[in-house]
Amino acid sequence: MIQTKLIPRTAEAHEPPMLLKTLLAQSLKYEPHREIVYRDLFRMNYVTFNQRVRQLANVLTGLGVGPGDTVAVMDWDSHRYLECFFGITSIGAVLHTINVRLSPAQILYTMNHAEDKVVLIHEDFLPILNAIQGQLTTVERYVLLSDKVYTDLNAVGEAPAGFAGEYETLLKSAHPDYEFPDFDENTWATTFYTTGTTGNPKGVYFSHRQLFMHTMGLATYVCGYQAVPFSSIADVYMPITPMFHVHAWGFPFLATMLSAKQVYPGRYEPELLLKLLLKEGVTFSHCVPTILNMLVSNPAAQQFNEQLSRWKVVIGGSALTKGLAKAALELGIQVYQGYGMSETAPIMTLTKLNDNERDLPLNEQIEYRTRAGRIAPFVDVRLMDDNGNFVPHDGHSLGEVVARGPWLTQGYYNDPDRAADLWRGGWLHTGDVASITPDSWVQIADRTKDVIKTGGEWISSLDIEDLLSQVPGVAEAAVVGLPDERWGERPHALIVQKPDANLTADHVKAELQTKIQQGDLNKWYLPDRIAFVAEIPKTSVGKIDKKRIRSEMKELILG
Amino acid sequence: MIQTKLIPRTAEAHEPPMLLKTLLAQSLKYEPHREIVYRDLFRMNYVTFNQRVRQLANVLTGLGVGPGDTVAVMDWDSHRYLECFFGITSIGAVLHTINVRLSPAQILYTMNHAEDKVVLIHEDFLPILNAIQGQLTTVERYVLLSDKVYTDLNAVGEAPAGFAGEYETLLKSAHPDYEFPDFDENTWATTFYTTGTTGNPKGVYFSHRQLFMHTMGLATYVCGYQAVPFSSIADVYMPITPMFHVHAWGFPFLATMLSAKQVYPGRYEPELLLKLLLKEGVTFSHCVPTILNMLVSNPAAQQFNEQLSRWKVVIGGSALTKGLAKAALELGIQVYQGYGMSETAPIMTLTKLNDNERDLPLNEQIEYRTRAGRIAPFVDVRLMDDNGNFVPHDGHSLGEVVARGPWLTQGYYNDPDRAADLWRGGWLHTGDVASITPDSWVQIADRTKDVIKTGGEWISSLDIEDLLSQVPGVAEAAVVGLPDERWGERPHALIVQKPDANLTADHVKAELQTKIQQGDLNKWYLPDRIAFVAEIPKTSVGKIDKKRIRSEMKELILG
Repeated sequence: MIQTKLIPRTAEAHEPPMLLKTLLAQSLKYEPHREIVYRDLFRMNYVTFNQRVRQLANVLTGLGVGPGDTVAVMDWDSHRYLECFFGITSIGAVLHTINVRLSPAQILYTMNHAEDKVVLIHEDFLPILNAIQGQLTTVERYVLLSDKVYTDLNAVGEAPAGFAGEYETLLKSAHPDYEFPDFDENTWATTFYTTGTTGNPKGVYFSHRQLFMHTMGLATYVCGYQAVPFSSIADVYMPITPMFHVHAWGFPFLATMLSAKQVYPGRYEPELLLKLLLKEGVTFSHCVPTILNMLVSNPAAQQFNEQLSRWKVVIGGSALTKGLAKAALELGIQVYQGYGMSETAPIMTLTKLNDNERDLPLNEQIEYRTRAGRIAPFVDVRLMDDNGNFVPHDGHSLGEVVARGPWLTQGYYNDPDRAADLWRGGWLHTGDVASITPDSWVQIADRTKDVIKTGGEWISSLDIEDLLSQVPGVAEAAVVGLPDERWGERPHALIVQKPDANLTADHVKAELQTKIQQGDLNKWYLPDRIAFVAEIPKTSVGKIDKKRIRSEMKELILG
Repeated sequence: MIQTKLIPRTAEAHEPPMLLKTLLAQSLKYEPHREIVYRDLFRMNYVTFNQRVRQLANVLTGLGVGPGDTVAVMDWDSHRYLECFFGITSIGAVLHTINVRLSPAQILYTMNHAEDKVVLIHEDFLPILNAIQGQLTTVERYVLLSDKVYTDLNAVGEAPAGFAGEYETLLKSAHPDYEFPDFDENTWATTFYTTGTTGNPKGVYFSHRQLFMHTMGLATYVCGYQAVPFSSIADVYMPITPMFHVHAWGFPFLATMLSAKQVYPGRYEPELLLKLLLKEGVTFSHCVPTILNMLVSNPAAQQFNEQLSRWKVVIGGSALTKGLAKAALELGIQVYQGYGMSETAPIMTLTKLNDNERDLPLNEQIEYRTRAGRIAPFVDVRLMDDNGNFVPHDGHSLGEVVARGPWLTQGYYNDPDRAADLWRGGWLHTGDVASITPDSWVQIADRTKDVIKTGGEWISSLDIEDLLSQVPGVAEAAVVGLPDERWGERPHALIVQKPDANLTADHVKAELQTKIQQGDLNKWYLPDRIAFVAEIPKTSVGKIDKKRIRSEMKELILG
């Protein structure tokens, strides 16, 4: 770094560190009467919320939690979880948000790896705890989370043996004051685990400074630039992606800072979600396409038409198809898209329509709304080729998405090799392949391991699958790259025919060739081989298993 | 500070520092076609602007400016100034914005004190330079700024002797690329001088981090909370408080980050301001009451009615009276207020109407809009009494306004005694006396040195003057506190009668007593003495000279 004239930052410097307690403090400044709602079970205003966060801090301190200790949470999306977002972190402890969808063995691994000291656990997850409790190496105390207590305070009797007690009961007897201390803004605030296709889950971690910056970045983008527009005046927020997964994309921090009304739905039951949407006047959510599809195709959706036309939804997790975007827009739902990952806290992109794009008719906006979004403020997103060179942002050249920015995980906890690989060359490598337009629109094309590198070009296996799926008679298609002596790799396609179809490889090739010409794609896109199979191999979560296809190509082909 | 678990921030940490170059970079991301306009002389889009900032950096580097050097600017509000905001700071140098309204002797003092190395100076200020140039101890090079060049490139011939050249000419021949380096975010970015009633001007200074945080704080407040609402989609920005004074309240940084259209008016000529307002569709400005009054009472204002009804104005500098607020609102102008000072970068408060306040009829909103505003996000503003105890935020108790926050000057440059006094007890002391409501509304009452401390209470001399001004026959009133053996201090009033009035002290006291009862004020407000004078002493800038009144009370009184 070059030598400049510095303003000293000593202990005497009168500049407060960037801490989550400061975001929390804003919630009392302007509209403390606004509410935080949990299902149809519990509601409070921000004054009560702030007091409960301090009571939680006192409970934890009483349980022996100090700065640097890790406190884990296993809960559905709730006001309690939001209290943990602030209460655990503001005493200088680390919040571990446990992914309750992992297998018990994986959960066990993450809890030991993160060195959880105290665990707050919803009664629904006690069976998991029972299965692994004997092998937990660091946990000292448990706190029970129960929904029953909100309808009948006596419903929860004694907490299980080894438990310090039940959450609400403990809060009630805790002192409502707590002077949150100042500490270094680079203090670990949160940690959670992400799973890949191989190896143990990897622990990402974020500091107070990083989450503060992520919240300010979100505020700047969604309020200032009006990307997926959010306004604390007009919006009521309900997350529909889990709080254990990248802090529900960081929106709870934003909504709390802005003292917007918030609605926490617990588990994602379609009927309840629609009911809350209507009853609480929800106008802003984020979810995966599956949930949106479930809501859009729910027969009850039609009767919520008026509220749906006030509903803005940011889609993430997997791509928003044009079909689903159209169906949602026709119901009046404003759909947007975001892209990010556990390692990026997560926001890297969000839909942001420009002056001219905002004025387009809705059906033309679909083109923009089904892209991954435009690069968020303060984040530097680039494309990189295999040799570490940058790929131009011309809207069609493909490269791996790499990033730098103020809120990216600095590594994987206690996992130096995989951390070094993540950050090779000083850029965070996402493993996603994309193109970027000159005006910052990102279009995800593939995973790096699935992209086909042929004749010096990268082509997207997903693009070819998309073309194949449009050929009449094709039920499903999978495309992988296989080694080729001359071109490096060449695409090979597997097709499952529709029951009444009788396709030949030559016919499909001819159809594809036409589509390639129409789409102005280059000839590299035409697969070397088109083969018919009875079934396409899938992973346990239902994704096409391209790894298996590549290794078993020969065995899979019919006849 | 307590010991927590830290995320290491070494040279290898992949977290970028908070630098002004990052704010600049955002202007190219989304709407780079938007324009920056200078009077009717020059316009460009953000692509050109970014290139010119880099050309300026190359010019400065060529003139021997390096990290840590100070570059001074003497200019009217212009696109050039905006280029300096980013170009000077992003090479690690310090921008000194010279207050061109100071006396030549004061300007000389500040330039030597700040150790200016290179000076960019508008031709209008060459007479000042000629007067002081021989006594400048650190300046090595000068650059001429001229408006003539925008109408006739040949209009500016040779720059004066000792000048490196004219700005536009130098830019033209400079390379358009410049890789702005990374450096410590606590690097000094800007410095400028503030004058008090005694002593030399004091140099305040702000780091990149502080200006970054101020910009994010502004974005959060004006975009997220919709305080004095600003939106890059809907707003066109034109400053009408000088860029040399607290960076035009930091709005140019915000507008640039959001790539909003910006209009720079040069000098504040009413006809030109109105013309620009209309022609460029300006919707957002800030100014002092005098300027607003000048525009509102300009005969031409009526014909700009439609544009004025789209115009939002933040008032600062001195208080917005109810009368002016009403006149502006009747023209459709949305008036708001802000409060801050050179030492606070400057935003401490801005008008922010709550859900219920926003729905009030305009005439009832005046009550809120003429307050100093509500405390901005991330800033901690409190009231303190003479013993360093906090005064409650109950809407009526008075105390000195003290502050902590991420963007306050850490001291006065090379002036440790006055810096220590500014920050006594770890809080920045503003010298203003105010009350604060429980929901963060700040109402400025007085300057600390003018507030009257009587019987353990603080009462505002301005409040008594306001009551006196409402007594028929009173032309002008001044109230000061004088020592009193029993009560510490007691208020004494001077009154100038209207030509045809024939008031007596007893009569005025009786009228005042009624008003004190109506206003539910306590009896302490009644002055001990009411005396009539021919004239009230004023300072050189036209403010009531209370210091002189206190010392010369006896001599001033008539008869």
